[in-house]
Amino acid sequence: MIAPHITIQSLPGIPLIQAGDDLAAMILEAVARLNLRLQDDDVLVVTSKIVSKSEGRRLDLRTITPSARAEEIAQQTGKDSRLVEVLLGEAAEISRMRPGSIITRHKLGFISANAGIDHSNVGTEGDDWILLLPVDPDASARRLREALFKATGAQVGIVISDTHGRPFRLGNMGTAVGVAGFAALVDLRGQPDLFNRKLQYTDIGFADELAAAADLLSGQANEGLPVTLIRGLRLPPGDGKATDLNRPPETSMFR
Amino acid sequence: MIAPHITIQSLPGIPLIQAGDDLAAMILEAVARLNLRLQDDDVLVVTSKIVSKSEGRRLDLRTITPSARAEEIAQQTGKDSRLVEVLLGEAAEISRMRPGSIITRHKLGFISANAGIDHSNVGTEGDDWILLLPVDPDASARRLREALFKATGAQVGIVISDTHGRPFRLGNMGTAVGVAGFAALVDLRGQPDLFNRKLQYTDIGFADELAAAADLLSGQANEGLPVTLIRGLRLPPGDGKATDLNRPPETSMFR
Repeated sequence: MIAPHITIQSLPGIPLIQAGDDLAAMILEAVARLNLRLQDDDVLVVTSKIVSKSEGRRLDLRTITPSARAEEIAQQTGKDSRLVEVLLGEAAEISRMRPGSIITRHKLGFISANAGIDHSNVGTEGDDWILLLPVDPDASARRLREALFKATGAQVGIVISDTHGRPFRLGNMGTAVGVAGFAALVDLRGQPDLFNRKLQYTDIGFADELAAAADLLSGQANEGLPVTLIRGLRLPPGDGKATDLNRPPETSMFR
Repeated sequence: MIAPHITIQSLPGIPLIQAGDDLAAMILEAVARLNLRLQDDDVLVVTSKIVSKSEGRRLDLRTITPSARAEEIAQQTGKDSRLVEVLLGEAAEISRMRPGSIITRHKLGFISANAGIDHSNVGTEGDDWILLLPVDPDASARRLREALFKATGAQVGIVISDTHGRPFRLGNMGTAVGVAGFAALVDLRGQPDLFNRKLQYTDIGFADELAAAADLLSGQANEGLPVTLIRGLRLPPGDGKATDLNRPPETSMFR
């Protein structure tokens, strides 16, 4: 008996990424090393960290001069004022702050700590280097999808993932910040339940569930495995974007 | 070359559940039909819906007499006043409400719509039947884990999952409401990153990631597949509970 199933597999051997690296080529080499070929409906979940690195989004805090506003926020939160300066450029607004913590709405629309700025695994030069998110992760995902299609003919889904905290739950979760090739938000409205009554809940954060599933493995590997292949799903059709998952601020009851 | 990988597999053939049904036995039969045996570190993700049904948590709204407070809230939100009456018994507090929507902090500690009360797939008698969450889903998970251990000798992890909305993101997600057999919240503090700097983020909502991963499949099957087997992880040791994932209200910046 064959049951519906999916496999989630890390792609080992992806080297430390430098600005300008060709991620599509590196992913294809990693897939080939496993004696696999990409096929339609495969999903590749790629950490935003390596996408950012390939796009040259590293920044040396020693080059940053904090504004008066950044100095003030740094004082209130105990954060590095140069980091706050960069954060203010990345964020649409500061949602909440308190000592040790700045929660922002990123220009890309999602709410997370520190405008998605990453201070770990950035490089060996010490603590002055940070990593910003890709400028447009949905566009990065589309480019990667197109490059893989050109090389293989496979129509794959791409998720660019980050790790976000949650306002009412403890523990970070893999979260989609870039999507290409499928519907990020799956609408179930109008589908009947098992008893032909309409389903009560209306949609699924499908791309976020993919990011969370991939994080099960990359979390275990302590970030050494930045690309994950998910195989076996029928991808919901659509030209989805990670920004489809942002709840419009004016409709949030918790803003 | 063998890469780290996991498989996520629905267990077909689980019948519609009635009060008093032996879920452990039904799960073991479903596993056997796939010619599999449970083994250590397997995770079974079980929807709260079938756990509730087996525990007799169906309720006929025709037996409910709404209080004055329930009538008032029903008027403000457009909800059924009998449903609101039940909801008030399930919730520790109402977090937010507006027409069409009541967000609660459940007595179990998590924040979701309608105190986790389910109005779909409850039965064939019509719209008066609802389903409450198990009284203590962590205890339900522990009992199921013990029953499976007695029958097979395997030390498995259990997640009892529900589908929750999110305050700042669109799309529901599989979420853990009951856990047994592993650390629900995985603490990474102090682990070095690739460059021997301390990791910036501190913990992973591991049980929620498992629930989200399982929902990738059950969402596709439109709820006909309430039990999912996840195999291939090394489970983080610990006597975790789903309530470990509740952010204490006094530490939330968005309460």
